Amino acid sequence: MSAAVTMAQPALTAEEEQQLAGLYADFERHHLMPLWTQTNDLMPLTPKPKAVPHVWAWKDLYPLAKRSGDLVPVGRGGERRAIGLANPGLGGHAYVSPTLWAAIQYLGPRETAPEHRHSQNAFRFVVEGEGVWTVVNGDPVRMSRGDFLLTPGWNFHGHHNVTDHPMAWIDGLDIPFAQQMDVGFFEFGSERLTDAATPAFSRGERLWCHPGLRPLSGLRDTVSSPIGAYRWDVTDRALTEQLLLEEEGQPATVAPGHAAVRYVNPTTGGDVMPTIRAEFHRLRPGTVTATRREVGSSVFQVFEGRGTVTLDGKEKALEKGDLFVVPSWCPWSLAAEGTFDLFRFSDAPIMERLSFARTHVEGGDR
Amino acid sequence: MSAAVTMAQPALTAEEEQQLAGLYADFERHHLMPLWTQTNDLMPLTPKPKAVPHVWAWKDLYPLAKRSGDLVPVGRGGERRAIGLANPGLGGHAYVSPTLWAAIQYLGPRETAPEHRHSQNAFRFVVEGEGVWTVVNGDPVRMSRGDFLLTPGWNFHGHHNVTDHPMAWIDGLDIPFAQQMDVGFFEFGSERLTDAATPAFSRGERLWCHPGLRPLSGLRDTVSSPIGAYRWDVTDRALTEQLLLEEEGQPATVAPGHAAVRYVNPTTGGDVMPTIRAEFHRLRPGTVTATRREVGSSVFQVFEGRGTVTLDGKEKALEKGDLFVVPSWCPWSLAAEGTFDLFRFSDAPIMERLSFARTHVEGGDR
Amino acid sequence: MSAAVTMAQPALTAEEEQQLAGLYADFERHHLMPLWTQTNDLMPLTPKPKAVPHVWAWKDLYPLAKRSGDLVPVGRGGERRAIGLANPGLGGHAYVSPTLWAAIQYLGPRETAPEHRHSQNAFRFVVEGEGVWTVVNGDPVRMSRGDFLLTPGWNFHGHHNVTDHPMAWIDGLDIPFAQQMDVGFFEFGSERLTDAATPAFSRGERLWCHPGLRPLSGLRDTVSSPIGAYRWDVTDRALTEQLLLEEEGQPATVAPGHAAVRYVNPTTGGDVMPTIRAEFHRLRPGTVTATRREVGSSVFQVFEGRGTVTLDGKEKALEKGDLFVVPSWCPWSLAAEGTFDLFRFSDAPIMERLSFARTHVEGGDR
Amino acid sequence: MSAAVTMAQPALTAEEEQQLAGLYADFERHHLMPLWTQTNDLMPLTPKPKAVPHVWAWKDLYPLAKRSGDLVPVGRGGERRAIGLANPGLGGHAYVSPTLWAAIQYLGPRETAPEHRHSQNAFRFVVEGEGVWTVVNGDPVRMSRGDFLLTPGWNFHGHHNVTDHPMAWIDGLDIPFAQQMDVGFFEFGSERLTDAATPAFSRGERLWCHPGLRPLSGLRDTVSSPIGAYRWDVTDRALTEQLLLEEEGQPATVAPGHAAVRYVNPTTGGDVMPTIRAEFHRLRPGTVTATRREVGSSVFQVFEGRGTVTLDGKEKALEKGDLFVVPSWCPWSLAAEGTFDLFRFSDAPIMERLSFARTHVEGGDR
Repeated sequence: MSAAVTMAQPALTAEEEQQLAGLYADFERHHLMPLWTQTNDLMPLTPKPKAVPHVWAWKDLYPLAKRSGDLVPVGRGGERRAIGLANPGLGGHAYVSPTLWAAIQYLGPRETAPEHRHSQNAFRFVVEGEGVWTVVNGDPVRMSRGDFLLTPGWNFHGHHNVTDHPMAWIDGLDIPFAQQMDVGFFEFGSERLTDAATPAFSRGERLWCHPGLRPLSGLRDTVSSPIGAYRWDVTDRALTEQLLLEEEGQPATVAPGHAAVRYVNPTTGGDVMPTIRAEFHRLRPGTVTATRREVGSSVFQVFEGRGTVTLDGKEKALEKGDLFVVPSWCPWSLAAEGTFDLFRFSDAPIMERLSFARTHVEGGDR
Repeated sequence: MSAAVTMAQPALTAEEEQQLAGLYADFERHHLMPLWTQTNDLMPLTPKPKAVPHVWAWKDLYPLAKRSGDLVPVGRGGERRAIGLANPGLGGHAYVSPTLWAAIQYLGPRETAPEHRHSQNAFRFVVEGEGVWTVVNGDPVRMSRGDFLLTPGWNFHGHHNVTDHPMAWIDGLDIPFAQQMDVGFFEFGSERLTDAATPAFSRGERLWCHPGLRPLSGLRDTVSSPIGAYRWDVTDRALTEQLLLEEEGQPATVAPGHAAVRYVNPTTGGDVMPTIRAEFHRLRPGTVTATRREVGSSVFQVFEGRGTVTLDGKEKALEKGDLFVVPSWCPWSLAAEGTFDLFRFSDAPIMERLSFARTHVEGGDR
Repeated sequence: MSAAVTMAQPALTAEEEQQLAGLYADFERHHLMPLWTQTNDLMPLTPKPKAVPHVWAWKDLYPLAKRSGDLVPVGRGGERRAIGLANPGLGGHAYVSPTLWAAIQYLGPRETAPEHRHSQNAFRFVVEGEGVWTVVNGDPVRMSRGDFLLTPGWNFHGHHNVTDHPMAWIDGLDIPFAQQMDVGFFEFGSERLTDAATPAFSRGERLWCHPGLRPLSGLRDTVSSPIGAYRWDVTDRALTEQLLLEEEGQPATVAPGHAAVRYVNPTTGGDVMPTIRAEFHRLRPGTVTATRREVGSSVFQVFEGRGTVTLDGKEKALEKGDLFVVPSWCPWSLAAEGTFDLFRFSDAPIMERLSFARTHVEGGDR
Repeated sequence: MSAAVTMAQPALTAEEEQQLAGLYADFERHHLMPLWTQTNDLMPLTPKPKAVPHVWAWKDLYPLAKRSGDLVPVGRGGERRAIGLANPGLGGHAYVSPTLWAAIQYLGPRETAPEHRHSQNAFRFVVEGEGVWTVVNGDPVRMSRGDFLLTPGWNFHGHHNVTDHPMAWIDGLDIPFAQQMDVGFFEFGSERLTDAATPAFSRGERLWCHPGLRPLSGLRDTVSSPIGAYRWDVTDRALTEQLLLEEEGQPATVAPGHAAVRYVNPTTGGDVMPTIRAEFHRLRPGTVTATRREVGSSVFQVFEGRGTVTLDGKEKALEKGDLFVVPSWCPWSLAAEGTFDLFRFSDAPIMERLSFARTHVEGGDR
C-alpha cells in the first residue's frame, strides 16, 4: 500500500506547453479543473487525513476554561462558554476532526446558558463536578461525574448552574460534518430555562431506564435515543460485571482485560444518535490493546486512571481528563498502568451507514 | 359486517342432481374439494375463531397441580409436570388458542426437570413462590415472584428445585402454532442440570441488564432477547414511574390510569421472541379500559389485585392467579377494583410480521 | 434423530391408579390437559406433518373443472368456481398443506366472477389458455399462459372471460393459514367488474415493470408487490440468460443445469406477499437436483416438459400441468428428462419471518 | 429565519481587554478555539453553503474536453482524462458541491483508461455518443446515449474506446465527501482491460434486468446495485408510460406534467449506491415545477430539450448537455419550453441515512 503514484507523462514540446497552458487557463475561466493534475491528492491509496493525532492535557484545559469564566459572559449571542479543541492539522478551524467537535464548556455559579436548538447532534460527558441541570425539551437533566448526556438534533436545550461553584464538562457534536455538508438549522428558544426544577432523575430516564422494558406509550422508534442521561453508576456496574464474568471464565469482555459498553438507543439497539457513537472502555492494570486502524475519527477522554496511548507509533502518557483524537486510519493502541477508564466517541455511524467502514487489527482482523 | 353470505344457486333437475353427485364423488376420489360449498367457513366476514373466551381460576389450578405433584413423577420421557389450559372450543387439544400454549408447571421439593431443547419458543411467569432455578444453555436463572423468564427456541433448558417446598409457575409457548405449521424440532440434553449453582443473577442479566448500554462483545443482533430474566422489581418500578409521571401531568401511560410496559429484546427494541409478545399492565383503582378487538389471541394472568374482564359482552370476576384467554377479534375490556396488575402474552409478533394485524377500539381506532 | 421417546413411569398401585383417574377427570372438568401424556405428539424430534406428499395429474384435474363449468354456476355466494387440492393427510379440509390452498379455477365463456376482497393473499398462475382479465382494485390485468398474477390481501378483485372459450388456471392462497390463525376478513364488492377494458398491459405493469427504475410517485414501500402481472416472456428470458451465462462459464444458476428466479416486490427486493413465496425453476435435460428438506410446505406445477420428482424416497413421473405438494421436512428432488420448467410456491416467508426456517441438503448444507 | 445573531457583550476595561488577549493567545498555544467568537459561522440559522448555484454550458465543455484529448495522454498515473466542474464558491477544489464530483471524461479513438478501484462510488451518464465499453470487475458494459452506468465503490473498472471516433460522457462521484471525511482507499488494477469483448449487454444486466424477478443465485442484498447499466430505452419507456397514464387520468406522475423515475438497487428497492441518488425527470412542454429547497446538493444535466432553471431567484436558459448545481437549501425550479428531459444526481442518501434531510416546497410541504 506504500507505492507512490507517479505520473508518466511524455515530454512536451514548447508549442504543446503553450497550448496546455492555454487549455488550463480556459479551464479556469470556465470553472473547471482537470483530474490528472491532482489524482494523488484526490484519491490516495489509503486515507491521508489533514487532521493529526493530538493529545490535550486536562491540566491545561481546565485552568483556561476557568479564566474564560472570569472574563467572558455567557448569554444570548455567544450562547455557550465552550472552548473547542482545534486539531493542529485543520488550521483555522475549531474541528477536532473533519466530522467532530469536542469542547470544554464552563458554567459559573448561578449562571444560565440560554435555550436554543440546532440540527447538530450534541452530547455532554462529565469528567468531574456537579450542580448543573441541562433542560432538554423541557425536561431537566441532572449532570454528575461520569454521566453521559444527550441533546440530539433539533431538541431545545439550555443549561443552568444551581450552585455557588463553577462546573465544567465536555461537549461533543457533529458541527464540522454539519458545516461542511451544509445541513445545519438553528433556532433560538427561551432566554431563561423553561423548567428550573432540579430533580434527581429526568422524565426520560424515569420512562425509559428500565432494562428490557419499553413503555407502551413509546412504541414508535426514534432516530435518537429517548434517554437523556446515562448514569455513571449504571456504566460502572456494567463494566464491573464484565470483568467479574471474565474472571469466572465466561465470555463477556471484548478482549482479555478489556471491558467495554456502547451507549445505545433503546428503541432500536443502535447508536444513540445518527452521526455519533459513544462508548466506555475499562482496561485492567497492565492490559495493552491490539494496534487498530479504523476509517473515521474518534476522540477519547480519560475518566480515571493512568496509562498511555500509542498514536501512529508515538507513545503519550495520559492521566485523568486528558483528551486525544485518533484521525481516520491512524494506528492506535492503549496501555493501562492501573485500572484505566476511558470515554470514547466517534463518527462511526456515518461510516457504517454510508458503507465506508473498515477496520484493520494488527495480527488479525476482528 | 353482519350480512350473511347466502347461496343463490338455481334449482337443479333430477338429472343435474345426479351429475353433480357424480362430480362430487369424482372430486373426492381425486382428493379435491370445491370452494363453492364452503365459502362461508373458509372465508368469514370477520374472524370466527373456534377458540372461545374462557377464564381459569387459580384456586382450581393450583390444587390440581399439587395433586399431580404427588402422583406423577417428572423425568425423561414425560419431561415436564405441566398441565395445559385446553380451550373449550378447541376440543381435544391442550391449546389455549390456535397459536398459544399456557400451562401451570409444578416442581416438587428437590426435583429436577431434565434438560432438552426445541424449536418452540417458551417463557415462564411466576405468580407466586421461589426456589427453582432454570438453567438455559448452561446459565442458571433464579425464578421468583413477578419474574418473566425466557427460554427461546433451540436453547437447552432444565429446571431444578433447590428447596424443601414445591413451586408452581406458568409456562407459555407457541406449541399449537409449531404443531399446526410443522416447524418443530426437539433434542434431549443432560439428564441432570449442567450447572447446579444458584446465583442471585444469571450471566445474561449481568451482561445485558444495564439500561441503555450494550456490551461490545454482543454487537450482533439476536432473533430472541439475550436477557434470561426480567425481574419483578424492575417491572414494578417502571409501572410506578409511569403512574407518578401521569400524576405530574406528563405523557407516560398508554391511557389515563393505565400503565403498561412491553418486555423487549435489547438488541433490537422489538419483541422478546419471534412469535410471542409479553407485556405487563397496571390499572389504577376504578380504571376501565376501552373495549378493544384485535387480530390474534392473548392470554392474561392476574398478578395482584381484583377486578373484572368483559369478554364478548360477558363480565367475569378475577382475582390473583386467574388466567383468561381472548380469542382473535373477541371484544374485551378490563375494570379495576383496587390497583390491578396483569401479565399478558400474545401472538402479536406473528400477526404483525405477516401483516395480518388489525385493531378496533370502540369509540375510535388507536 | 430416530430415537423414540419412551416413558419411564414406575408401576402404580391400584389406589394410585384410582387417584390418577380422578385427577384426569378433574383436569377435564376444568378444561386442562397434562403435557406428560402427549409429549411425543406435541413435540416431535423433527416435523411430523399430517400432510402427505401427493401428486395431482392435470389430465384428471382439467376435465373435472370442465364438468364443473357445465354444472355449477359462478356468482355471488359461491363466488368462484375453484376446486381445491385436498391433501389426503388433512382429511376433510381443502388444504394442500397446513398453510396453503391450491385450486384449479375455471371460467366459462363470457362468465364473470364478481368482485370481493379478503385478508387472504392470493395469486394465479396460468399453465394454459388466455382470454380472462382479472380486475384488481380497478386495474384490468390480462391473464395469459405462463403469467404469474397477484391479488394481495384486501385488494378488491374479480375475473371475467371476454371470449367464447373457457379458461382455467391455478389459484394459490394462504387460506389454511388464515383460517387456523383466525385472521381473515372478507368484503363483497361490485357484482360486475368495475372496469371491463381489456388492455394488453395493466396500469401496475406500466408503472412498475421497468427494471431498476422506481416511479417517484411510488417511493413508499408496500407490504405486497405493486406489480399485478409477471409476464411469461420476461420469466422465460431471465431463465434463458442464466443458462447462457452458465454456458459462458459465468456464475448465474443456482446449481449446475438449474436456473431459477424468485418473483419479488420491487419496493423491497423481498417476497411478493407476506406469506407466499413464488419461484420459477428450469432444469436442463438430464439435470438431477440434490435431495433437500425444508421447514414449511411447497407446491410445484409443471409448466412444460417431462421429468420426475422423488418425494420421501418415492419417484413419480410428471408432465405438463401436474401439481405436487412437498410437506414440511419431506425430502424431495427433481430429475429432468427434457428441459423441465416448474412453477413453485411456498410458505417460506412465514418460516423466515418467524425464524423457523431450516434447510438440509443431502451431501452438504447450502 | 432572517433575524441576525447579535453579540451582546458588555464593554471591557483596558485591563480586561489585555487579559482577554492573553487568554486567546493561550488558547492558540494549546490548540483551542472559543465557540463564542464564531457561533454565527459555525451554526447558521439555515444552511449557508460556500458552494454557489452555477451553470456549465455543454458548448463550452465539450470543445475543452476535445482539446484535452489532443494534448493530454491518458494512462497509468493520470488515470483518467476527466475535467471536473469546480464550483466557483469552493475556490481551489474541483468540487461541484461539498459532497459531489462531476466531470466530463473524454476518451479518444482506440484509447484505454487503465483499470483501478477506489472506495469512492462512481457512475457515468452518456449525453451523446457511443463506442466505449466500461469493464467493471471483468464485466464489459456498453456505453450509449442515455445510459446510466454504475461503478460502485471498490469495484475494479477501466474504459476502452473500440472505435475511430472519440467519446465523452459525464462522471459523477462522491470524491469531495470521501476526501473531506478521509474514507478513501485506492488500488491499481490491470494496465489493459481484463476483458476486451464488446457485448451488447453486460452480464449484470442479463442476470438482473428482468422486472420483478430476482435470480436465486443472487438472494443476498448488496450495498450497491448489481446492475451495471440502466439503458435509455427502458428509462424512456417508463417516462412515456407515466405521461400516458396521466393522460388517462391515472396517478403516475410526481406532479402534473412531471414524470420522474429513480434508479434503484433491485436487491433493496433503495438507492443505487450508499452516497449517490440518481433520477431522470421529464417535463411536458410548458410545465413549471414548484420552487423547492432541499438539504443536500444536486447536479442536473439536460439530456434533451430546452427550458430554464431558476436558481435562488435567477433564471438561466438551458439546452442539451448543460449542467447546473443546486447547493443545499438553494431554492430552485424548472420550466420546460418543449419536452424537457433532465438527468439528476444528488447526495440525498447521505442526508436521509444521517437524518438531516429536509425539504421545503413553496406553497406547501410535500
